[in-house]
Amino acid sequence: MSGHGQAGGVRGLSLNQATVQHLALDEAVALCVRHEIPAIGLWRGKVAEHGLARSAAAVRGAGLDVSSLCRGGFFTHADPDARAAALADNRAAIAEAAELGADVLVLVGGGMVPGSRDLGLARRMVADAIGELVPDAERHGVRLGVEALHPMFCADRCVLSRLGDAVDLALQYPEAAVGVVVDAYHVWWDSQLPAELARARGRIAALQLADWVLPLPADVLLGRGHLGDGHIDLALITAQVQEAGYRGYAEVEIFNAGIWDAPPDDTAATVRERFRELLR
Amino acid sequence: MSGHGQAGGVRGLSLNQATVQHLALDEAVALCVRHEIPAIGLWRGKVAEHGLARSAAAVRGAGLDVSSLCRGGFFTHADPDARAAALADNRAAIAEAAELGADVLVLVGGGMVPGSRDLGLARRMVADAIGELVPDAERHGVRLGVEALHPMFCADRCVLSRLGDAVDLALQYPEAAVGVVVDAYHVWWDSQLPAELARARGRIAALQLADWVLPLPADVLLGRGHLGDGHIDLALITAQVQEAGYRGYAEVEIFNAGIWDAPPDDTAATVRERFRELLR
Repeated sequence: MSGHGQAGGVRGLSLNQATVQHLALDEAVALCVRHEIPAIGLWRGKVAEHGLARSAAAVRGAGLDVSSLCRGGFFTHADPDARAAALADNRAAIAEAAELGADVLVLVGGGMVPGSRDLGLARRMVADAIGELVPDAERHGVRLGVEALHPMFCADRCVLSRLGDAVDLALQYPEAAVGVVVDAYHVWWDSQLPAELARARGRIAALQLADWVLPLPADVLLGRGHLGDGHIDLALITAQVQEAGYRGYAEVEIFNAGIWDAPPDDTAATVRERFRELLR
Repeated sequence: MSGHGQAGGVRGLSLNQATVQHLALDEAVALCVRHEIPAIGLWRGKVAEHGLARSAAAVRGAGLDVSSLCRGGFFTHADPDARAAALADNRAAIAEAAELGADVLVLVGGGMVPGSRDLGLARRMVADAIGELVPDAERHGVRLGVEALHPMFCADRCVLSRLGDAVDLALQYPEAAVGVVVDAYHVWWDSQLPAELARARGRIAALQLADWVLPLPADVLLGRGHLGDGHIDLALITAQVQEAGYRGYAEVEIFNAGIWDAPPDDTAATVRERFRELLR
């Protein structure tokens, strides 16, 4: 990135496989190879469909790095058994991340506790669960990446709504065990973002990119756009993330039904082209 | 509010006329009188349709207080003429608020500047415009209320996304001239809300209430629910607002196509009942 080169740059482009949702894992791997994209972000469901060992072999055989495994989390349950099951599932996710050699296991905290309007309770459940998982993460050499989601997902997906909420949590643990995931789509609007990124120095475990396009679709999960098609100054945020010392991949993760229906090779070509423009 | 009574309470319930969107101003006034709701929040378009002088006479004749006039703002334009026109329109809004005897003129800053991804530029335009309007507000004895909108509206409606952004702006001016509008629907998710409300002491110019209900509709503007139907701890936020010294009305403002289509007397009855439960 010109003007920020003195601080080093991101390691390169990664394609999160959610951007090509309709492809199986091996197809997404082949797509990355075809388009000379050096890394991939994986999803557990796709990994399970293909088989964990086969998935690990596929990415390794293709020479791809695994920039992230999505995802663990969803810790906020009223029922203790459900909380215990969530922890067990997250321990499995940690083991999967280790086998896949993923740079980070992305954690999405979970929304409000069913039947409760107590945000503090939900946030404590997320914090407690992460504390429980840290020893497992350390044993497996896996880094947990706490992600803040856009506040429009606070009630149903993630009660950590500002990057600062994630940083507050991560700072309680060793740097190698717990970092934060910076997803520009979720945090771009925050006037405190530059300050929080500076505070996150050494803690940024992943950078995810998608653009904010309007109007939002009926399912707001699927409203993301190709880099450059929307309102976010992604070049600025990428520069700030780099200035905070991040040297990992920039992962493009776009949930958009229209993009999912496009030919995957067109999508990959657009992702590469937009990424090059972003770093210009 | 029991448990918080020592700090005094809100002055009572106000019905924002956007909650009964299909009613003309005089019909909304009559509805408030019929349901013994002592105050109303007005919208400029409805006031203009009914006529400014007639509207002022209607609310005064009915013995209603005007808890707010919605709204001024929308300051973020690339074209200087458009910015000047926005200022002129806001000066007209200040004069209208004075004639109506409104407690506050609600200001919604505006979204990103067309063609720009520079959030700082948009925020400076909002700040500059408020600075320009303060002398007019003081001359008319009108209080400007800076409102933070939910981050999902950052790109297209308001680049102030956290209550703290609004507080930062308000604190630059005399308390009587510039305050903040706390709309629980917009700010409930913020882990810093209690701290920002404490910082807003003496600055809270209005309290607006609606609940966060899921799923969001296709038009996310219209996703609000009756108090108690959603995920927000409105009793807690109302208590915190009172503890920060607020003694004005609690205004119920619900944008929801389903509620708009309901019989207005049913809506008013529900609003009253839910408000009573909230303060219990």
